[in-house]
Amino acid sequence: AIDPAFLHAFGKLPARIDHASGPDAEERISLGRTLYYETRLSKNHDLSCNSCHDLAAFGVDGKATSPGHKGQLGARNSPTVYNAAGRHAQFWDGRAVDVEEQATGPIMNPVEMAMPDEKRVVETLRSIPAYVEAFAKAFPEEKEPITLANVGKAIGAFERGLVTPSRWDAYLGGDEKALTDEEKVGFTRFMETGCTACHAGAYVGGAMFQKLGLVKAWPTNKDLGRFEVTKNEADKMMFSVPSLRNIAKTGPYFHDGSVESLDEAVRMMAAHQLGKELADDDVKSIVAWLGSLTGEVPAAYIAKPELPASTDKTPKADPT
Amino acid sequence: AIDPAFLHAFGKLPARIDHASGPDAEERISLGRTLYYETRLSKNHDLSCNSCHDLAAFGVDGKATSPGHKGQLGARNSPTVYNAAGRHAQFWDGRAVDVEEQATGPIMNPVEMAMPDEKRVVETLRSIPAYVEAFAKAFPEEKEPITLANVGKAIGAFERGLVTPSRWDAYLGGDEKALTDEEKVGFTRFMETGCTACHAGAYVGGAMFQKLGLVKAWPTNKDLGRFEVTKNEADKMMFSVPSLRNIAKTGPYFHDGSVESLDEAVRMMAAHQLGKELADDDVKSIVAWLGSLTGEVPAAYIAKPELPASTDKTPKADPT
Ligand code: HEC
Ligand code: HEC
Ligand code: HEC
Ligand code: HEC
Ligand SMILES: [Ca+2]
Ligand SMILES: [Ca+2]
Ligand SMILES: [Ca+2]
Ligand SMILES: [Mg+2]
Repeated sequence: AIDPAFLHAFGKLPARIDHASGPDAEERISLGRTLYYETRLSKNHDLSCNSCHDLAAFGVDGKATSPGHKGQLGARNSPTVYNAAGRHAQFWDGRAVDVEEQATGPIMNPVEMAMPDEKRVVETLRSIPAYVEAFAKAFPEEKEPITLANVGKAIGAFERGLVTPSRWDAYLGGDEKALTDEEKVGFTRFMETGCTACHAGAYVGGAMFQKLGLVKAWPTNKDLGRFEVTKNEADKMMFSVPSLRNIAKTGPYFHDGSVESLDEAVRMMAAHQLGKELADDDVKSIVAWLGSLTGEVPAAYIAKPELPASTDKTPKADPT
Repeated sequence: AIDPAFLHAFGKLPARIDHASGPDAEERISLGRTLYYETRLSKNHDLSCNSCHDLAAFGVDGKATSPGHKGQLGARNSPTVYNAAGRHAQFWDGRAVDVEEQATGPIMNPVEMAMPDEKRVVETLRSIPAYVEAFAKAFPEEKEPITLANVGKAIGAFERGLVTPSRWDAYLGGDEKALTDEEKVGFTRFMETGCTACHAGAYVGGAMFQKLGLVKAWPTNKDLGRFEVTKNEADKMMFSVPSLRNIAKTGPYFHDGSVESLDEAVRMMAAHQLGKELADDDVKSIVAWLGSLTGEVPAAYIAKPELPASTDKTPKADPT
């Protein structure tokens, strides 16, 4: 049985990951939902957030790195958007503080959605009457509600509802039967091995930066993590510790998507972060427990709305 | 300079560490304060909480292990009571869930305050009119307010105000000058070394159990930590990770008080928990930063009240 005292370091997912000030208005969430699926926020009208973070596939695309504008591949694996709002910071290197700030990034990123400038984003949305109305309702106090920052705020408001409670939450809520015996053993191994040092809390991670290769150097250092943003020596190989919620469904693993198998990812973590070689049985049971973190996706909440039609003022798709 | 993104894993101390339901009534806190200093809660009327947890000395007695009833030494170092209410669990092995539950333990512990039974505790307090009145005010809904559980509740209510904000909180609040340059370097080393894996949050620790000797076996295993309570194999050498608040003032270190010097404690942590040998300079700067966690003790709050006089019904001191 799991020692209940170990569970203090964990917690159930909230129903929504709201701001301290409370939930966003329904109008903002619903606008965000539409924008999440809006391909006209990409230069060639072919990519939306959902292209790389497929809400029907646990918020990922299953690729090592994702094809963006003109099929260009970025250098990093697309993390899931589920429960991402609860992380201490966004991106593998933590360069955005929250989902609202994060969401404006990919739209302008030349290898992602590749919009040339904020002007094009605003022009596009303004040319579509349904968006003019939806932004006015979502930001009722603002005179010019269609801005890139507000696109981020609306998408962020939507993302704050992308929460996936799982059997682990049921277990934390007192339902002893929610986990199998093997999963319980797996949690105990996870704890004993020291994984909880980095992966704890409601998100089982997502709360801090840690050095990748803390005890034993990581096999690659092409991507230096937070150092790429700050150029501080101390930030070399510092990565934001991912949440392990839905981890069985969000392979391939690590910031470069270099590892296909979850077994292998677990073994590498033990070796490089903790200086330990795990026995096959321990890997198996840890992976079994990780499976209990696979949650329910909120089917109604993520249902794709109909996108409003373009008008003749809408800038055209640009494949260049 | 400290990368501000690293600070997300930390937090300022609250003004009080209250229950989710809100602060206790003043009457309960004030009764708890008196009981904290009450030697008649010990068999020989010679020990109070303050004997081992001296509030004027950062909540400790500075000894490896503390003399209790008849000078008997326990096996464990007395942790500080400052900020203890914020810990995930109480005692080195986490065997009490909160300060209220904890406080009833030492009164009955035969090598601490050594009261023979709850009856003697109740008799003692009932024999003193000022306590009869104070318990009635502190627990107005109860018919028989003088119980051991209520002694714990009152002392716990008092302990929830034992909070020591320090320069580190000022720094987290935005005062860049609150830390010296060396302390800032020290925090960065603490982070890079991986100490934050276990010591993070507002209490810089205090949030979970971890194996002592996680990467490299600990030199002693006389005390097996949480295993002593549960007898679960998985709990061997699992200890509750201490808060590092006021750590410069709460030596000697570790559960058995076996290490005098903070430098040495830091080196041992790096070696045994993280498989790393720290350079002298790094130890020095980490210890410098730890100094910034030394806080202000709330002088007025801890002022010792006058203890009410015994009556002829009060059981006598018993040196046996
Ligand atoms: C072409 C692929 C692609 C598109 C399109 C895309 N993303 Fe991402 N997303 C990524 C990649 C890759 C990362 C990680 C980048 C990094 O860490 O540097 C990422 C990171 C994120 C994160 C951070 C999650 C975490 O746990 O750190 C969020 C949230 C997110 N994207 C949401 C969105 C939203 C909202 C949109 C649309 C506005 C979007 N993405 C469009 C590929 C994409
Ligand atoms: C000292 C910190 C630390 C410890 C201990 C640690 N991890 Fe990690 N974990 C990380 C970091 C940082 C990453 C991100 C790696 C990257 O950027 O590629 C990560 C990534 C992962 C991933 C891949 C996540 C993804 O979305 O690709 C898995 C799975 C994982 N850890 C499981 C574990 C397990 C199981 C253990 C114990 C055996 C463990 N971790 C111990 C810090 C840690
Ligand atoms: C004779 C010495 C002694 C006396 C008297 C004593 N304690 Fe302690 N206290 C200890 C020791 C030793 C421990 C650690 C024991 C363990 O972990 O098994 C401890 C642990 C604690 C803790 C847990 C702190 C943490 O961080 O885990 C609290 C709180 C505490 N004592 C408060 C009190 C209160 C309140 C009283 C009076 C009712 C009291 N103590 C009386 C020695 C003493
Ligand atoms: C994997 C978990 C873990 C890591 C990493 C870790 N610690 Fe600890 N730390 C603990 C535990 C558990 C204890 C309690 C030891 C005991 O019971 O004697 C502790 C105790 C301490 C103490 C003594 C506290 C006291 O009140 O006696 C200090 C000081 C300390 N740690 C500092 C550090 C520093 C500095 C680092 C990094 C170099 C670090 N720790 C890394 C888990 C950890
Ligand atoms: Ca992945
Ligand atoms: Ca934060
Ligand atoms: Ca001590
Ligand atoms: Mg608790």
